[in-house]
Amino acid sequence: MSDVPESDAPESDARESGAPSERTRVKRYHRLAHYDSATIHAVLDAMPVCNVAYVHEGRPIVTPTLQWRDGDRIYWHGSAASRMIRAVAGQEVCVTVSLIDGLVLARSAYNYNINHRSVMIFGKAEVVTDPDQKKAQLQRFVDGLIPGQWDRLRPVKAQELKATTVLSLPITEASAKVRTGQPEDEAEDYAFPAWAGVVPVRLVVDPPVADPRNLPGVEMPPEVRAFKIG
Amino acid sequence: MSDVPESDAPESDARESGAPSERTRVKRYHRLAHYDSATIHAVLDAMPVCNVAYVHEGRPIVTPTLQWRDGDRIYWHGSAASRMIRAVAGQEVCVTVSLIDGLVLARSAYNYNINHRSVMIFGKAEVVTDPDQKKAQLQRFVDGLIPGQWDRLRPVKAQELKATTVLSLPITEASAKVRTGQPEDEAEDYAFPAWAGVVPVRLVVDPPVADPRNLPGVEMPPEVRAFKIG
Ligand SMILES: Cc1cc2nc3c(=O)[nH]c(=O)nc-3n(C[C@H](O)[C@H](O)[C@H](O)COP(=O)(O)OP(=O)(O)OC[C@H]3O[C@@H](n4cnc5c(N)ncnc54)[C@H](O)[C@@H]3O)c2cc1C
Ligand SMILES: Cc1cc2nc3c(=O)[nH]c(=O)nc-3n(C[C@H](O)[C@H](O)[C@H](O)COP(=O)(O)OP(=O)(O)OC[C@H]3O[C@@H](n4cnc5c(N)ncnc54)[C@H](O)[C@@H]3O)c2cc1C
Ligand code: HEM
Ligand code: HEM
Repeated sequence: MSDVPESDAPESDARESGAPSERTRVKRYHRLAHYDSATIHAVLDAMPVCNVAYVHEGRPIVTPTLQWRDGDRIYWHGSAASRMIRAVAGQEVCVTVSLIDGLVLARSAYNYNINHRSVMIFGKAEVVTDPDQKKAQLQRFVDGLIPGQWDRLRPVKAQELKATTVLSLPITEASAKVRTGQPEDEAEDYAFPAWAGVVPVRLVVDPPVADPRNLPGVEMPPEVRAFKIG
Repeated sequence: MSDVPESDAPESDARESGAPSERTRVKRYHRLAHYDSATIHAVLDAMPVCNVAYVHEGRPIVTPTLQWRDGDRIYWHGSAASRMIRAVAGQEVCVTVSLIDGLVLARSAYNYNINHRSVMIFGKAEVVTDPDQKKAQLQRFVDGLIPGQWDRLRPVKAQELKATTVLSLPITEASAKVRTGQPEDEAEDYAFPAWAGVVPVRLVVDPPVADPRNLPGVEMPPEVRAFKIG
């Protein structure tokens, strides 16, 4: 799409491109590809919403869910009775996380684009079977959003933990695609008098709204303001 | 999860729930379900980013993409050579669109939640084969983001249209889930002195940034400010 044709020649194999495997090698717009943990982790940490795809009775299903990261793994949770949770345990999944950072207005419709950050991970989802590990990961999920919050809450009950399944996926077969900046028009199109530019988009966190049913005298912990997204 | 047990009793079948089919009937948290076009269309129109899931060589893949809507169908586009585009043509897909509207802090970790709007659509993806219809849909995509922009751009070339595939999916087997408002704690937990509330999250559009390579005297069309998301 850009006027840099040499960068559009696909690398001949996964090793040369830096991709961890053949199926994770970015082919389209591969100049936007990143395979390093720093880039991949930064995207995962910026956006808890993920999309978990699986095959169910031969058909594709994708479920929006929340993920959190611990080192080289992502985790997600749900009801032990949920279709998604039951269907993915031990099975092949593909998980994406993506953020839209802006609309990119080019001089031709063909070169319109968006600025974005995204990650795609392939692998087999694993159930966290050890109860202590499961509890520790749920605590990590809560405290990762609001530091220290777990210990301020009504303690978790055994039956609640039992009703909850936590899944995990190694961030091994993973790739990121990141686009920033202005459009890349064809060389000759820079002479066309259309306005080009970027309209930036971002997520903001507004001031917390207290539950009217809060007990009198219960103050908001200052850590609630640490919640970040995007 | 809430203290309203009767609303947790699943409806016995799709017809009773209002779902268009058995596989689109929301089971978990089904009190958040909506099956009417107005709700479904509003979610689709608020968020161009979607996730398209398909089965490729027996395995699930989900690809973040942009969708736009025309009446009772969604559309998306990509390279005629793209793996996703080639794999989904005529095949079963599942497409989700979702927005996160806030983090919901309950009095127990178990009842933490997020406010969100989401849509899930099932069906067979269809290629838009008629060249005029394909062009008209691409124009709709561009003009839907920035009114009248198509006609301001360097005219689209025949070879660009040829390199582009547009897919469509009827919004027939579709469901929405929408959550708003404060946490729903267990009745007895309202006596627990933890702060509860909502931290709202929203997408904002920042002022446009002109491409430094714009021709002198080329002004930004005021319609660029019409771009909305969220
Ligand atoms: C928010 C958003 C919107 C997008 N909108 C569009 C659109 O409208 N049209 C369009 O054609 N494309 C869009 N893309 C890019 C899209 O996700 C695919 O990268 C692209 O469609 C090529 O698909 P493919 O199956 O041919 O990928 P290939 O390049 O063949 O994929 C090979 C491998 O590359 C990696 N990979 C591919 N895509 C991504 C990704 N997005 N993030 C991380 N790794 C990836 C995976 O490991 C994958 O297995 C969008 C991406 C984002 C994040
Ligand atoms: C941003 C976001 C984050 C979420 N985070 C979590 C999480 O962390 N843990 C968790 O368990 N769930 C989460 N959910 C809800 C999740 O999407 C599923 O609804 C839930 O996991 C139940 O899955 P299931 O397969 O058991 O659904 P079922 O209720 O069995 O699904 C049956 C049918 O209901 C409809 N349906 C299901 N989910 C949705 C949906 N989200 N939108 C529209 N229609 C739907 C579909 O037609 C589906 O085929 C999140 C949803 C959103 C939008
Ligand atoms: C940051 C903390 C948490 C957040 C943001 C969160 C969010 C969510 C969301 C969005 C859902 C889906 C609801 C729906 O289907 O619409 C969900 C379901 C669920 N969560 Fe959590 N959760 C959190 C912590 C926990 C913890 C700590 C537990 C267990 C102790 C738990 C147990 C469950 C269970 C069992 C379900 C499934 C409910 C059902 O389908 O009936 N969650 N959660
Ligand atoms: C609002 C307008 C548009 C937006 C926001 C947009 C956005 C995008 C994005 C995000 C991609 C993926 C790039 C990547 O893989 O990283 C893409 C690919 C593509 N777009 Fe568009 N697009 C728009 C209009 C068009 C139009 C009008 C055409 C054709 C005339 C077109 C043709 C293509 C083609 C062929 C690809 C695939 C490129 C490749 O994989 O090599 N786009 N577009």
